Amino acid sequence: MNEAQTKHMFDNRYGTGQSTIDGILRATNLLIAGRNVVVAGYGWVGRGIAQRMAGHGAHVTIIEVDPVRALEAMMDGYQVMTVGQAASWGDLFVTATGNINVFRREHFEAMKDGAVMANSGHFDAELDLPALRAMAEGHERDVRPNVVEYEIGGKRLNLIAEGRLVNLGAAEGHPAAVMDMSFANQALSAEYVAKHYAELAPQVYNVPEAIDAEVARLKLASMGITLDPMTAQQLEYVTSWKHGT
Amino acid sequence: MNEAQTKHMFDNRYGTGQSTIDGILRATNLLIAGRNVVVAGYGWVGRGIAQRMAGHGAHVTIIEVDPVRALEAMMDGYQVMTVGQAASWGDLFVTATGNINVFRREHFEAMKDGAVMANSGHFDAELDLPALRAMAEGHERDVRPNVVEYEIGGKRLNLIAEGRLVNLGAAEGHPAAVMDMSFANQALSAEYVAKHYAELAPQVYNVPEAIDAEVARLKLASMGITLDPMTAQQLEYVTSWKHGT
Amino acid sequence: MNEAQTKHMFDNRYGTGQSTIDGILRATNLLIAGRNVVVAGYGWVGRGIAQRMAGHGAHVTIIEVDPVRALEAMMDGYQVMTVGQAASWGDLFVTATGNINVFRREHFEAMKDGAVMANSGHFDAELDLPALRAMAEGHERDVRPNVVEYEIGGKRLNLIAEGRLVNLGAAEGHPAAVMDMSFANQALSAEYVAKHYAELAPQVYNVPEAIDAEVARLKLASMGITLDPMTAQQLEYVTSWKHGT
Amino acid sequence: MNEAQTKHMFDNRYGTGQSTIDGILRATNLLIAGRNVVVAGYGWVGRGIAQRMAGHGAHVTIIEVDPVRALEAMMDGYQVMTVGQAASWGDLFVTATGNINVFRREHFEAMKDGAVMANSGHFDAELDLPALRAMAEGHERDVRPNVVEYEIGGKRLNLIAEGRLVNLGAAEGHPAAVMDMSFANQALSAEYVAKHYAELAPQVYNVPEAIDAEVARLKLASMGITLDPMTAQQLEYVTSWKHGT
Repeated sequence: MNEAQTKHMFDNRYGTGQSTIDGILRATNLLIAGRNVVVAGYGWVGRGIAQRMAGHGAHVTIIEVDPVRALEAMMDGYQVMTVGQAASWGDLFVTATGNINVFRREHFEAMKDGAVMANSGHFDAELDLPALRAMAEGHERDVRPNVVEYEIGGKRLNLIAEGRLVNLGAAEGHPAAVMDMSFANQALSAEYVAKHYAELAPQVYNVPEAIDAEVARLKLASMGITLDPMTAQQLEYVTSWKHGT
Repeated sequence: MNEAQTKHMFDNRYGTGQSTIDGILRATNLLIAGRNVVVAGYGWVGRGIAQRMAGHGAHVTIIEVDPVRALEAMMDGYQVMTVGQAASWGDLFVTATGNINVFRREHFEAMKDGAVMANSGHFDAELDLPALRAMAEGHERDVRPNVVEYEIGGKRLNLIAEGRLVNLGAAEGHPAAVMDMSFANQALSAEYVAKHYAELAPQVYNVPEAIDAEVARLKLASMGITLDPMTAQQLEYVTSWKHGT
Repeated sequence: MNEAQTKHMFDNRYGTGQSTIDGILRATNLLIAGRNVVVAGYGWVGRGIAQRMAGHGAHVTIIEVDPVRALEAMMDGYQVMTVGQAASWGDLFVTATGNINVFRREHFEAMKDGAVMANSGHFDAELDLPALRAMAEGHERDVRPNVVEYEIGGKRLNLIAEGRLVNLGAAEGHPAAVMDMSFANQALSAEYVAKHYAELAPQVYNVPEAIDAEVARLKLASMGITLDPMTAQQLEYVTSWKHGT
Repeated sequence: MNEAQTKHMFDNRYGTGQSTIDGILRATNLLIAGRNVVVAGYGWVGRGIAQRMAGHGAHVTIIEVDPVRALEAMMDGYQVMTVGQAASWGDLFVTATGNINVFRREHFEAMKDGAVMANSGHFDAELDLPALRAMAEGHERDVRPNVVEYEIGGKRLNLIAEGRLVNLGAAEGHPAAVMDMSFANQALSAEYVAKHYAELAPQVYNVPEAIDAEVARLKLASMGITLDPMTAQQLEYVTSWKHGT
């Protein structure tokens, strides 16, 4: 199900992009314009967040381990830094790598007083929170709902929603307008299985492409958009070009 | 005070732009991407909202009565429509004109089922709410905190924060990062009056340009930014060019 | 070779996006800001063009036959229309579909006086030029280098570079900064074949992922960018998550 | 005439923004995406250039002496640096300050091998060209039409169009779509003087606001856009609010 384009592409890029910002604003009421924002990870979620942050006037830096993605980020107009370089540069840090311990003890040490951290990856392990808490030695306090301040050697670092998913912890998760497509995929896929189970082997299948396309078509129709079908001539051209001599 | 650049330009454009979106997201959890958003008014507030909405992937249309501003909106990549054209096109309407009754009975009649309205101008008079309420004939209900749904002939129109300022009614107003400049302007201006009152006639003065510049300089310094002074040669060039032969 | 990410993603999106604009500007000196621009096709080339056109202040409309791509275009902030709707709306038309006869007789008839057409897909068949020429009945003339005006019933339609690739016909093709990666892919792939031919069956292979990554890494290094390697712990986490229980 | 909004705002921001890019692309065929671009000056011209460069995927840094403008640039998402910081960071430098010797001997010394310089301010004095030529000691050569390479201690610096206005020197100046408004202002102002000369004292007048508005209205009409007039009630509200009690 997660491979369906109308699921991962829309949920992760458009849904999480917006709801991450929403969670951060609700938790902090921070002005994004002019702020140095570090986004760790340039997958669908990371690029959704980066795009919305830039749309709010932030200066965005991407952290990536994959060189092709890092290059893409550069070409998309973002800066690219190592974790070490970004740590002392950023005002706001958002993780979306799907990996663990992206920011660690040495990075917390390098961060500015007042820095803010949030996570939009899938677990609360993207920030090394045991290290952060050990460094604070109990100097922590709630400064706003969903924001805990850790004091480390006179410097204050702020953590949103305990490092859990910020769009769930501090906002309302995905808007209905992206969840509808996920649910439509699930319903139509269940119907597909009910109809075709006799032909299916017991293994994991992706959502059939036709269902993906149908969900997108229905969504467009709900927005008042209709598409041209290909002409017979175009269909023949594309088909012969793809499969042809 | 409202003429100070570090007040109106930053408060209205950057502060209100963000906090209007923030208020709308908190109230509705609506996905902005792909949505038809109508912004009435292309002053500092309106262009701040338009820019942030576009940054979230919205399709933005501007309503303006001033042709120079309307043309600027066109050149900035937005569509420009009359109120009548926009009424049936929009999914989300935000007013920021400083004028009254921008959307009226005939526009409410033309709006789509599910349309959402919010105000970010200075009073709750930008939408003709008495007309809206009269049309609903008591068919109104709270659908979310800060959102009232009016049913008009089987169609539902949603109003955020009773048409009052959406960034105050449904969010937290301006972030501290823009208020600090407003307060700095006020404090430094009070100091200025205290020092110079003997030379000042009893009339309204704008904030002296030097205070405006000092507030901006201090703000930049807090962000780690220093500026070059002009060289002696540049200063002479600019001065002689401005005042010269 | 065309499947290598450092080839198709960068050439098509970043290279063609820019060089298409470049070709159109050289040919027409048209102001893009405020202009209604129709981009046919939302593949890598089409989205590169759309993004650069929007970056110049254009109003961009996408034509697509694929509903998933069309929906993506909507969410990216563009309008989506049928060919018929776009024909009378657009000031400037750019094709990038890889298909034939996207704009046909009925669309030329609907276009505005002064409309401009260019092609950035792979052949000069995306516009039905035989139909266009038949409709003009010999009323055609060179109005600028690389621009031919066809007069059709008192209306003038302009065609850039005879409908051939506009970035080659009216500009200089891809900038060196994207071609270097294509050539690097080719050179490293040739070296790979020379070293590994004994293990390779006689069939078409994609560029090995490691070469793609190496090209991106070298490109980043030339821009002064270095990336973090994963820590041992992160590598183990990712590996066990991907292949694990 | 230069104070007319439909002249300076549109010419300088939209016209020069685009034609500066156009000139640089024609001269160099440089890929802008991912490139470090330094724009000196954040007036109308500078912000037009910055916006179009960002729209092409550049990393944009602004140089300013005015703190209010510098702060605006920060909030608009650009980096702000001193000339010294920017010199070693940039790949491409564009001046638009209206001042002299923005980049001088010490900055040329700090620039990267292969750096490119262009001017879009009003004279060829924004770059200290006598210093540049003295440093090159005759090691200069034409590398492309409109591009001269200066070799300085083994490092090559490239200058477009001899430091003269790049949009005139290497492209075609303003597109017709912005010049039409300038000419309309001039024609209508001449008519105004012819009709009203008896009432006018011999001094410099700005273009009357009504002419500015009329030019914008005509331009919008040519784009198919009509605007709402204010309702009688709105007109009364605005008037009484502006002039009122």
